[in-house]
Amino acid sequence: MDLFTALKERRSCRNYTGKEIEPDKLEKILEAGGWAPSVMNLQPWRFYVIKSHSLKARLKHSCESLAQEIFVASGWKWVSKYKFDFLVEAPVLIAVAASPKDTGADQFIPGRGTGYACSCCAAVQNMLLAAHALGVDTLWFTLYDTPRAKEILGIPGELDLVSIVVAGYCAEPPKNVPRKPLAELTVTL
Amino acid sequence: MDLFTALKERRSCRNYTGKEIEPDKLEKILEAGGWAPSVMNLQPWRFYVIKSHSLKARLKHSCESLAQEIFVASGWKWVSKYKFDFLVEAPVLIAVAASPKDTGADQFIPGRGTGYACSCCAAVQNMLLAAHALGVDTLWFTLYDTPRAKEILGIPGELDLVSIVVAGYCAEPPKNVPRKPLAELTVTL
Repeated sequence: MDLFTALKERRSCRNYTGKEIEPDKLEKILEAGGWAPSVMNLQPWRFYVIKSHSLKARLKHSCESLAQEIFVASGWKWVSKYKFDFLVEAPVLIAVAASPKDTGADQFIPGRGTGYACSCCAAVQNMLLAAHALGVDTLWFTLYDTPRAKEILGIPGELDLVSIVVAGYCAEPPKNVPRKPLAELTVTL
Repeated sequence: MDLFTALKERRSCRNYTGKEIEPDKLEKILEAGGWAPSVMNLQPWRFYVIKSHSLKARLKHSCESLAQEIFVASGWKWVSKYKFDFLVEAPVLIAVAASPKDTGADQFIPGRGTGYACSCCAAVQNMLLAAHALGVDTLWFTLYDTPRAKEILGIPGELDLVSIVVAGYCAEPPKNVPRKPLAELTVTL
């Protein structure tokens, strides 16, 4: 698939058929993550590929609890009604984790030290694009409680869980989302 | 260009010829940034397109000062010798900034609130890939002092400067960088 087609057509999917992802496609998606740029070429990302139904169900349960806590803190009604079914319906979740120590020189800049997370986000975006080109739908998911999710997934304490990629085949085609015009986003200096 | 070719061939360039980027290519690169996924579809990114030589020179100077401070803090010799010439040699720098308020529900999760930065990193990765497909070389740059860089570029106080994309035409082709094998990066659960 042409790069620009992938960039423009990729959408977030929040409902999945449960159809498995073919192993060769899953491997290509993970490889795409590994081709991301990273701070000092540390390639800090680790990919936890979650297929276990019981782990997905425990993660869903912990996210539902979190949503209620966020509702109490925020008063946002949509959070209290948010459905996390996609966490068990999707055949694969890819948790992307890295050590905050693998962050390069920005660890010495006050208020920073986020290079490892930037690198992981680049890997996530590569995976979303690769998945789309292979006909696999995805969601970039971050609405989890980090310590609880790490405990469920057995992610070592020294790693940060930066994001989770939900992947599978969408039951209903995701909607198009209009983009803000460039003129509104851009300042030229 | 095929997506997977772009993913695998994109490299970081640290020396630029100074040749200008064609306006239609620059527009396509910025548009690619705007097609990134974002938390709650907030599209929080703002792109500061820096062509002014004096601003680039001031930014370079502030980064050189920062590198000396990092050298003192870290003892890392390479930092003290690091050359920031690419900041003035490259025809365009794109500073990607966003408000930490545009971060969605993760602002209520302790230790998080980083959704706006994840969204900006996805936009950066889209821009790096689009640039490569158009024959434009880039560097994902983060070795700046945030308050000083924001002041030089006139970025409002309420925005965080997440990353800077250095863009232009490479004087020497960037080197290939080997990737860690998937087996080393992946855990299946």
